[in-house]
Amino acid sequence: MKREIDYQRVLDEMLHVAAPLAHQGTVADYIPELARVTPGQFGVALCLADGATFSAGAAGKRFSIQSISKLFTLSLAYHLEGDALWRRVGREPSGTPFNSLVQLELDRGIPRNPFINAGALVVTDVLCAHYAHPSLAILDFLRELSGSTDVNFNSAVAESEAGHGHRNAAMAHFIKSFGNLASDVDAVLQTYFQHCSIEMSCIEIARATLFVANHGVVPRTARAVLTPLAARRLNSILLTCGTYNAAGDFAYKVGLPAKSGVGGGIVAVMPGQLAICVWSPTLDEYGNSVAGVAALEHFAALTAHSVFQ
Amino acid sequence: MKREIDYQRVLDEMLHVAAPLAHQGTVADYIPELARVTPGQFGVALCLADGATFSAGAAGKRFSIQSISKLFTLSLAYHLEGDALWRRVGREPSGTPFNSLVQLELDRGIPRNPFINAGALVVTDVLCAHYAHPSLAILDFLRELSGSTDVNFNSAVAESEAGHGHRNAAMAHFIKSFGNLASDVDAVLQTYFQHCSIEMSCIEIARATLFVANHGVVPRTARAVLTPLAARRLNSILLTCGTYNAAGDFAYKVGLPAKSGVGGGIVAVMPGQLAICVWSPTLDEYGNSVAGVAALEHFAALTAHSVFQ
Amino acid sequence: MKREIDYQRVLDEMLHVAAPLAHQGTVADYIPELARVTPGQFGVALCLADGATFSAGAAGKRFSIQSISKLFTLSLAYHLEGDALWRRVGREPSGTPFNSLVQLELDRGIPRNPFINAGALVVTDVLCAHYAHPSLAILDFLRELSGSTDVNFNSAVAESEAGHGHRNAAMAHFIKSFGNLASDVDAVLQTYFQHCSIEMSCIEIARATLFVANHGVVPRTARAVLTPLAARRLNSILLTCGTYNAAGDFAYKVGLPAKSGVGGGIVAVMPGQLAICVWSPTLDEYGNSVAGVAALEHFAALTAHSVFQ
Amino acid sequence: MKREIDYQRVLDEMLHVAAPLAHQGTVADYIPELARVTPGQFGVALCLADGATFSAGAAGKRFSIQSISKLFTLSLAYHLEGDALWRRVGREPSGTPFNSLVQLELDRGIPRNPFINAGALVVTDVLCAHYAHPSLAILDFLRELSGSTDVNFNSAVAESEAGHGHRNAAMAHFIKSFGNLASDVDAVLQTYFQHCSIEMSCIEIARATLFVANHGVVPRTARAVLTPLAARRLNSILLTCGTYNAAGDFAYKVGLPAKSGVGGGIVAVMPGQLAICVWSPTLDEYGNSVAGVAALEHFAALTAHSVFQ
Repeated sequence: MKREIDYQRVLDEMLHVAAPLAHQGTVADYIPELARVTPGQFGVALCLADGATFSAGAAGKRFSIQSISKLFTLSLAYHLEGDALWRRVGREPSGTPFNSLVQLELDRGIPRNPFINAGALVVTDVLCAHYAHPSLAILDFLRELSGSTDVNFNSAVAESEAGHGHRNAAMAHFIKSFGNLASDVDAVLQTYFQHCSIEMSCIEIARATLFVANHGVVPRTARAVLTPLAARRLNSILLTCGTYNAAGDFAYKVGLPAKSGVGGGIVAVMPGQLAICVWSPTLDEYGNSVAGVAALEHFAALTAHSVFQ
Repeated sequence: MKREIDYQRVLDEMLHVAAPLAHQGTVADYIPELARVTPGQFGVALCLADGATFSAGAAGKRFSIQSISKLFTLSLAYHLEGDALWRRVGREPSGTPFNSLVQLELDRGIPRNPFINAGALVVTDVLCAHYAHPSLAILDFLRELSGSTDVNFNSAVAESEAGHGHRNAAMAHFIKSFGNLASDVDAVLQTYFQHCSIEMSCIEIARATLFVANHGVVPRTARAVLTPLAARRLNSILLTCGTYNAAGDFAYKVGLPAKSGVGGGIVAVMPGQLAICVWSPTLDEYGNSVAGVAALEHFAALTAHSVFQ
Repeated sequence: MKREIDYQRVLDEMLHVAAPLAHQGTVADYIPELARVTPGQFGVALCLADGATFSAGAAGKRFSIQSISKLFTLSLAYHLEGDALWRRVGREPSGTPFNSLVQLELDRGIPRNPFINAGALVVTDVLCAHYAHPSLAILDFLRELSGSTDVNFNSAVAESEAGHGHRNAAMAHFIKSFGNLASDVDAVLQTYFQHCSIEMSCIEIARATLFVANHGVVPRTARAVLTPLAARRLNSILLTCGTYNAAGDFAYKVGLPAKSGVGGGIVAVMPGQLAICVWSPTLDEYGNSVAGVAALEHFAALTAHSVFQ
Repeated sequence: MKREIDYQRVLDEMLHVAAPLAHQGTVADYIPELARVTPGQFGVALCLADGATFSAGAAGKRFSIQSISKLFTLSLAYHLEGDALWRRVGREPSGTPFNSLVQLELDRGIPRNPFINAGALVVTDVLCAHYAHPSLAILDFLRELSGSTDVNFNSAVAESEAGHGHRNAAMAHFIKSFGNLASDVDAVLQTYFQHCSIEMSCIEIARATLFVANHGVVPRTARAVLTPLAARRLNSILLTCGTYNAAGDFAYKVGLPAKSGVGGGIVAVMPGQLAICVWSPTLDEYGNSVAGVAALEHFAALTAHSVFQ
């Protein structure tokens, strides 16, 4: 039934709605390399489970995926560890900004969920324990999922993060002080900064995320990354925790499991049907792309795609 | 497709799974009247949008709906106020227990969401401003939704709450001190304690909740309580905030919008399809029914009903 | 040695220094009755243990003693209860504003010290348990200490507090919910608002406080209100907790045990020697009189009176 | 007048009272090197401003001074920076444990006072900016103050701290992320761990602290380390913040400015008169020596030395 939607027209309308908003908010400026991105850009790409791809605007332009990488590192870590992972990180919305250390102290080093920075560091630590070269393992995983063999790190961004990443270093040492980090702090941080620095386009990200919509199976290769149950569960975490401290508001407005990044990207999933990625570099106070959120809200209104309907 | 599920068999299996758990956890004991409930009971009822009703166990036995009432008071208040309501209460998971005052202080009297006690008090205040007899208005609403004209308050429970409700009184005065309560504190508290004291059975609650699953329309009477968009949004708030500080975990395990109460009831919604209510009086540390959560998790596994699939 | 100080000249210089500051800051405006006080006034009075009294400026003008009353209610309660009092209230600086509820939640209803509002409510509750007419008992105590039989409540202020005192009501109910309040919340609040509304002049307050400087004995009547050890201990609490969340700064600048009130008064004690009270109604961000703190800092510099020297 | 006290008898009685308590509490065990100390030991030394020294028990045995070093680093930093120091660190009791990061987040990187770990790191950063070899500068300062040229670091302890100091590393990175640390995090931490590892005896510490009691002047050399006003102010900070989150209780029981360390030492000052140092390695829940606090309380009772009397 949903296949009858004219997705190209939907994406064109999203572009129309989002373009005037693409200058609202501010580009992430906590590291010089990200602050250099030109504001005003917007792109969107949508992939159906059967492989059909639609796009509009700057959908082929690569940008820094930043926290969107956490969707993929969590999938990898859960694939490796299963439910044992939940002994080290929770699954609850945090009620605090993504880089807060307050709750970490109250909960004695157990991050509230895998999508705040603290939780993502624990997930990265899992990968550091499993792989000799964890950054490369993550990169390979993203290349496989997206089908783009030239997806890569941006070393300048990774180094810039390392040079300005004292808040993340504080978190990693804090978690380590509670015994919830196995590897060296510096090794975990380096891996973390590297996977955050990966650059992909909306098309590549939407394609790479399709397995989440497709019950855990990569449509292009038929590889089962996650079981259907695990994919369903990943969707629940994306919905309740994927858009920082605005997850409730995003669920209210858009109603789709999603993961955002301070590079301005947001990827969302309609379970069983599609993955969609928007990008526009200027952010709201929570760290989510202003035009991106508005575009996805319009998408939900146009298509009636929402898990709550 | 989903209609082919043999719901009676599903409910019977839920009863089978839940019965051994119906003694785990502890009955709410903060007021003597609730502490008197006999542990070990379990009931479940399911209503399809077309009116078909299934049940098992003590599905016809009335219990104290407690916080489940917040689903209905929010629906009424949103019906009356629309989006203006969100100037007085947020839509974000709180990350703190349901009766915490900490976040209320940081957010200067704006509760994080309408399902923690603080938020429900603001919602009740809205109803106090609109109705001469707000408790009766809420009761009438529930009688209409459930089709049971003898649904009623339990005065002993309401008085017991009033006598022991110092934490709620603290919250109401605190909100009032920030200017976010219009009516007298005592009037709001009295109304709040009364609507929490209403007694309904699983069958009645499932039936009363059907409009949420049915795009805002009460199937029995065709009355539109909410617009389809408002119903979708209510579902999102139920999913992200409906089960106290365990909403992320509940979404992970069950994957359905739901509201729980310390009386031991949990009502869940599969949008477009059905409402289901379970009841078992013993609670986990978060205030959710132990057997109820387990039964709903089994329901999701048996039927594949989940918004994330 | 200290007796050779020309105290009248010291007080005149304090008046000279403080006068230009007596318009800085803002009059407490959370209740209309207090907001009506004319800014720009300043008074100071000093009493030596031998009874000599010095004054300058508006030292004879009565003002609302507000939280200065907590010094006296604590003395009364400690006189009645002894160390048993410390089972219900702590003796540590709070690190939070005087009307915060956050720490009260973490500490499960045990206020950090008797000089934040929460602690003062517990102290008032002690007096409510001991006296049939606790407000009158407090008033009598202050009349005896000050030697002024016409010291009295300001009913308009007390009623104004009661009408706007939702934050204090929130605290009282919160404490009651943890079982740390024996009397009715309303009775405690009424007594609290009444003793805060008492009006005294700088001369009367300095005289009433003299027993704290004089090892617990009222010089005029030779009555031992506290033992020497208890007086010493009261001084320690005044120093570490007496000036709200600025106690560290006050100790740094002035170095004397002291209690301030939002009416603009501050009374300080040099153990073994004297009590001094300043008044100026405009307050800094912590709730302490701007000109009053500056005047006392000048006093410490001129006289070398400091417990740290 | 106070000179007539028979201090040797006082110290002998302190030893008598403290000995039975010297096994209560637990040795600091967060680093292996400290956990190795034999419990049950007690020593006390007292130095009068005129140079007379008294001692009892293990007063000549060196132990890890740990946080007592913060008294000396603050003195050095204040000597160098004056009031400019207070732009980077506050002077208020924290109301939280000494190694908490919560308040640091709320106050955006400005530690509440120089005696919690966060504040001491900022103080150490000041010394790192002023000295090419800050650790040696601190060591020289302590050798000069104590008159013991062989006071030294314990490298094993410093390395042990560095290997287990993730909580301090978290703090340093956190402060750096707010821009309140100028030097490299690793350099600051190394200096911090080194000065904490210095070993001194009760006699050496009491002697080294005498300048604080003596209006800022080292009696032995007549060198003015601090002005009289600065010494008075240092005493105020010691009293309100020197014994971790138990400063109010310590002021209540003992009534003297003091600094404690998790090595089990506590040094206290009676302004104008004397410095006294106790040592016993087992600690209470706040990190203060159990027998040490009890001994000082007995000292205050026997001698009537208290700033509040």
